[in-house]
Amino acid sequence: MKEGEITQIILLKFEKTGTIRMSMIDISEKKEITRTATASGRIKLKPGTIRLIKNKQVEKGDVFEIAKVAGMLAVKKTPDAIPHCHQIPITSIKIDFEISDNYIDATVIVKTIAKTGVEIDALCGVATALLTIWDVVKKYEKDEQGQYPGTGICEIKILEKIKGE
Amino acid sequence: MKEGEITQIILLKFEKTGTIRMSMIDISEKKEITRTATASGRIKLKPGTIRLIKNKQVEKGDVFEIAKVAGMLAVKKTPDAIPHCHQIPITSIKIDFEISDNYIDATVIVKTIAKTGVEIDALCGVATALLTIWDVVKKYEKDEQGQYPGTGICEIKILEKIKGE
Amino acid sequence: MKEGEITQIILLKFEKTGTIRMSMIDISEKKEITRTATASGRIKLKPGTIRLIKNKQVEKGDVFEIAKVAGMLAVKKTPDAIPHCHQIPITSIKIDFEISDNYIDATVIVKTIAKTGVEIDALCGVATALLTIWDVVKKYEKDEQGQYPGTGICEIKILEKIKGE
Amino acid sequence: MKEGEITQIILLKFEKTGTIRMSMIDISEKKEITRTATASGRIKLKPGTIRLIKNKQVEKGDVFEIAKVAGMLAVKKTPDAIPHCHQIPITSIKIDFEISDNYIDATVIVKTIAKTGVEIDALCGVATALLTIWDVVKKYEKDEQGQYPGTGICEIKILEKIKGE
Amino acid sequence: MKEGEITQIILLKFEKTGTIRMSMIDISEKKEITRTATASGRIKLKPGTIRLIKNKQVEKGDVFEIAKVAGMLAVKKTPDAIPHCHQIPITSIKIDFEISDNYIDATVIVKTIAKTGVEIDALCGVATALLTIWDVVKKYEKDEQGQYPGTGICEIKILEKIKGE
Amino acid sequence: MKEGEITQIILLKFEKTGTIRMSMIDISEKKEITRTATASGRIKLKPGTIRLIKNKQVEKGDVFEIAKVAGMLAVKKTPDAIPHCHQIPITSIKIDFEISDNYIDATVIVKTIAKTGVEIDALCGVATALLTIWDVVKKYEKDEQGQYPGTGICEIKILEKIKGE
Repeated sequence: MKEGEITQIILLKFEKTGTIRMSMIDISEKKEITRTATASGRIKLKPGTIRLIKNKQVEKGDVFEIAKVAGMLAVKKTPDAIPHCHQIPITSIKIDFEISDNYIDATVIVKTIAKTGVEIDALCGVATALLTIWDVVKKYEKDEQGQYPGTGICEIKILEKIKGE
Repeated sequence: MKEGEITQIILLKFEKTGTIRMSMIDISEKKEITRTATASGRIKLKPGTIRLIKNKQVEKGDVFEIAKVAGMLAVKKTPDAIPHCHQIPITSIKIDFEISDNYIDATVIVKTIAKTGVEIDALCGVATALLTIWDVVKKYEKDEQGQYPGTGICEIKILEKIKGE
Repeated sequence: MKEGEITQIILLKFEKTGTIRMSMIDISEKKEITRTATASGRIKLKPGTIRLIKNKQVEKGDVFEIAKVAGMLAVKKTPDAIPHCHQIPITSIKIDFEISDNYIDATVIVKTIAKTGVEIDALCGVATALLTIWDVVKKYEKDEQGQYPGTGICEIKILEKIKGE
Repeated sequence: MKEGEITQIILLKFEKTGTIRMSMIDISEKKEITRTATASGRIKLKPGTIRLIKNKQVEKGDVFEIAKVAGMLAVKKTPDAIPHCHQIPITSIKIDFEISDNYIDATVIVKTIAKTGVEIDALCGVATALLTIWDVVKKYEKDEQGQYPGTGICEIKILEKIKGE
Repeated sequence: MKEGEITQIILLKFEKTGTIRMSMIDISEKKEITRTATASGRIKLKPGTIRLIKNKQVEKGDVFEIAKVAGMLAVKKTPDAIPHCHQIPITSIKIDFEISDNYIDATVIVKTIAKTGVEIDALCGVATALLTIWDVVKKYEKDEQGQYPGTGICEIKILEKIKGE
Repeated sequence: MKEGEITQIILLKFEKTGTIRMSMIDISEKKEITRTATASGRIKLKPGTIRLIKNKQVEKGDVFEIAKVAGMLAVKKTPDAIPHCHQIPITSIKIDFEISDNYIDATVIVKTIAKTGVEIDALCGVATALLTIWDVVKKYEKDEQGQYPGTGICEIKILEKIKGE
């Protein structure tokens, strides 16, 4: 028995059990209701970088404003980036940052009146806002070898998902 | 003295010290050399979800193939998403996944011959690949209240950045 | 009488008969109803390439999963690519492939509840899915001169368009 | 007192007065009504260029058709380009041009049934249509030094915004 | 032995034979040379529609100009649409149409000086130009039931691929 | 003689004089040199709006930071928006604003080492930065009827185009 034959048997098996071949799932019958999702995440930075951000001395500009803009655009582009995501008409985006001594927390709240939830959209906003912060301060985060031993993004999660008012 | 006046004084101050107003930095004089960046990240999932992925029983399709495609596209779209990123002609993208009992690790290696590095591009690939996994398995990760208490993305970092061959 | 003058006469003529100058047509008054479109198309490949696909031995990955993801994203990006297409909130996308000895058929079903149909969106999904297959297997399709004498995409058509449930 | 400290004081001040930190504003409660916006703008060109356009002798093609297509696509991509813009399902776009001896006027009418207005979308259409004209005729507008002393875009404005039928 | 176990055995098997897991292939070592690709394709239309196109009586505008613009933009967006395609700096795009009694042929020639070929980019241009023609004339192609029995896109192929001058 | 016939005669005429059918022009033979373009433009605003901007009291955030980010992204997306524009690897973008009592001037300097100039890219940056300012302050610019009688964008022009160092 050759390799190709085994694969085909398994494939047929799955086709019968119906576990493969789903594409973007059908939400036609779901109700249009208010849906809100709150996502958050953290970027760990050097205390020196945090100080530059606090003092607005980062060369590329106001870190939070740049990250907020990038995050908003990313929320709206979610169905372009995440294959199975539906196109949702977002009615509101709120992006906030909290700054500590060696990390920054980003929170993104996305709201819509739609047939499906917006948690992935909120997560995309958080991830892009944090990646933008990294990009904007990368000069201060690199060590002498050009590496980023201490920089990292973590704790990306959904704080809350609400259906209805 | 009114509020507006204080702001203007501060603004002028910064303009003189030259810390504001940088846009996309000038890389014209940098050399075109081979540059590689390896980024990685982790998504924590329920053991039950991990089993479905291993058994290829996830309804939306092959989780790793979908995440790999989304990750590749995200690497190439980095300058569209991250405001200060330069447009880099990527010569190679490698995306791999390692599956454990309650998490999946994604690794993205991006290579180019260009005037600036591709670490942010590699990070964008990791973040989008992990967000795509979340989206594809979200049905299995939600609890009865529709929340995601255990799901999370963490440890997004640069493992290595190499300049030259 | 010089060339320019003739043109102006003709132009004026058309402006009066009202046959030029339409932009994206007005669908404001059309009813939001369920609309479904099924498009299909075929890519002709070498029998050897088909065998590699069936045996999952194609170097770039699972051909159908990659094509399905590219097809889904293309359906959603239709109004970005086709100038006169309206932005439609797609509620469902189904993409399937049927594999024969020397060709693959792709079928894309797109569903929405909207003021206008989604047949062009379904066609965009079919075309992009088939072009992605070509790209993924191009290495096996090229002859010794680097040409593609037998590869081709054909029979892209609308199988069915349904208005209402 | 050092520079950084002053900034922080000011920042806190603003946080208390609540003037910072707004992201994409919440339109959830606004009513879905018919909304129309008419924007216009002008590009000043050399009389010789205008003659080439009138005579359809511009090398790159029919200037108005190209500009109309670029303008329509730009209207639909407004929320991708303008950070705070909501995603609006446009129901109609009309783009027209009026040609004078040394300028062309573009008018863009955008219509929707939505929770917020489309004036920025109409302005994006005007700006992109005019920039496309510039690009298509730039060869004829440059002087011997490769400069554009007479070319310019001006009078971009909203002619009318209508709420309701 | 349960279903999941079989799958894992097969998966391991493939991992060892090294046939899975390729992402965007590495072209770093390939030479930057002139590369040209010519693609073509055909759309079958009703004779009545062809007459309207010839007489420039199509309501939405000049069919060939609209299709040419959409085709050019699609060529440039190929790496956004086709996952494994590299970003190529296109140096020239030529799009032409030939009109017969019941079909239109589109030809797209793409040229670059790059490390890899542009045949997929040329095919994307052809497909999008033909889909745009369909969209622009769909009103005249539909039968009384709103179906498209005779409309179809076929013969999408690569006429020639050239490496070097 | 009927309308259609006249058109065909004119069309044939033009085909013979060779004035139609150009697509994205061939720059393969042009030299890769340093190229810089400086574009500027002006937005006229109410004195009250200007004061809010100066005092950083605009609800949606720091007007200049938001406009700068939108402008940078627009420069990079020029070949997506303007059909005949080549894809240029931008090496530097500088965006600055000068604020007067009733208008704001934006200046965008774009630099590249490429086969063709970047003046259209710089103009796209100016237009998008100014449109973003309009969007961010539109609440303060509208009159009681929701119209914008005094708001306008003007004087978009190329200040300088430089070839070589």
